[in-house]
Amino acid sequence: MEPIRYTQRICKDKDKITRFLTEKRVGTISMCETADKPYAVPVNYVYWHDKIYIHGLGSGKKNKVLAANPAVCFTVYEEFGTVTDPVPAKCDTAYLSVVIFGKAVPVQDVNEKTQVLDRILEKFVPGFFKTPLPSQFVKQYRSLFDNKAVAVYCIKPDVLTAKENPIDMGHMFGG
Amino acid sequence: MEPIRYTQRICKDKDKITRFLTEKRVGTISMCETADKPYAVPVNYVYWHDKIYIHGLGSGKKNKVLAANPAVCFTVYEEFGTVTDPVPAKCDTAYLSVVIFGKAVPVQDVNEKTQVLDRILEKFVPGFFKTPLPSQFVKQYRSLFDNKAVAVYCIKPDVLTAKENPIDMGHMFGG
Repeated sequence: MEPIRYTQRICKDKDKITRFLTEKRVGTISMCETADKPYAVPVNYVYWHDKIYIHGLGSGKKNKVLAANPAVCFTVYEEFGTVTDPVPAKCDTAYLSVVIFGKAVPVQDVNEKTQVLDRILEKFVPGFFKTPLPSQFVKQYRSLFDNKAVAVYCIKPDVLTAKENPIDMGHMFGG
Repeated sequence: MEPIRYTQRICKDKDKITRFLTEKRVGTISMCETADKPYAVPVNYVYWHDKIYIHGLGSGKKNKVLAANPAVCFTVYEEFGTVTDPVPAKCDTAYLSVVIFGKAVPVQDVNEKTQVLDRILEKFVPGFFKTPLPSQFVKQYRSLFDNKAVAVYCIKPDVLTAKENPIDMGHMFGG
């Protein structure tokens, strides 16, 4: 892995990165369909035990691409606004972004799948369901759309980098 | 290009897509560094004359990857919240997302480059600069970081797809 060129921007604060990945809701999963055909889609995710988990249909294009080539680049960003400067070229975005390289591996074990889906419900509809998801439900559920079980993928980061340009109070546009 | 599987979600409203791409500020540019090494970064962009334009350092990793392989998948999303359902598997995200396939081509012409950078300033710091950017400035400017001119890329969509799951009033989580 080659180093980030723009070294001033590297964020090494592990707690901050963990908080960020825990709180944010959407990441973009980038794949190579072929050597010159990148394919990417935004997806909801949970960050759990230092891994990214996503879920979805079992028969979409993503499933096909990942079956042939599981390597992914998973990115999450937040833009905080624009930092102004009298020199146009020095106006800049305040942001935090995380880029993760790894493989998206299908989770096969029904209990692990159920736990992940429970984390997803807990994150996106906290308190809405009064009881945890029964693994029996996950085992038996088939989508009305494609008659397949829900697909869950785990991305264990081989490399995780974060870049940051913090908010510069007093110089934010419109601030 | 194979069709989107989940056809209920296709958004074909061209005006809506144009408004969306015009208003949103960040997209993720996905590339293939090699056949099994996807590489992606979130970037600010402008949508102008039906094309995506991005700018940045002239010497980063992105520049190197794009020089070897200009094929990109450019994604922009907005998440509107979670649509609840008594059946856990039917809880779903309300969103709009656009996926663009094309090539990221460096803009060489100084006048075109200047026009793009002006659009970028107009979008991100509207009214902050009282006069348009002089092309002379763009021509002469070299980054203090790498002593290179600013890089501007144009992505002309070969294929543009949009997917949407609209807000379902009365069923939004927390709504």
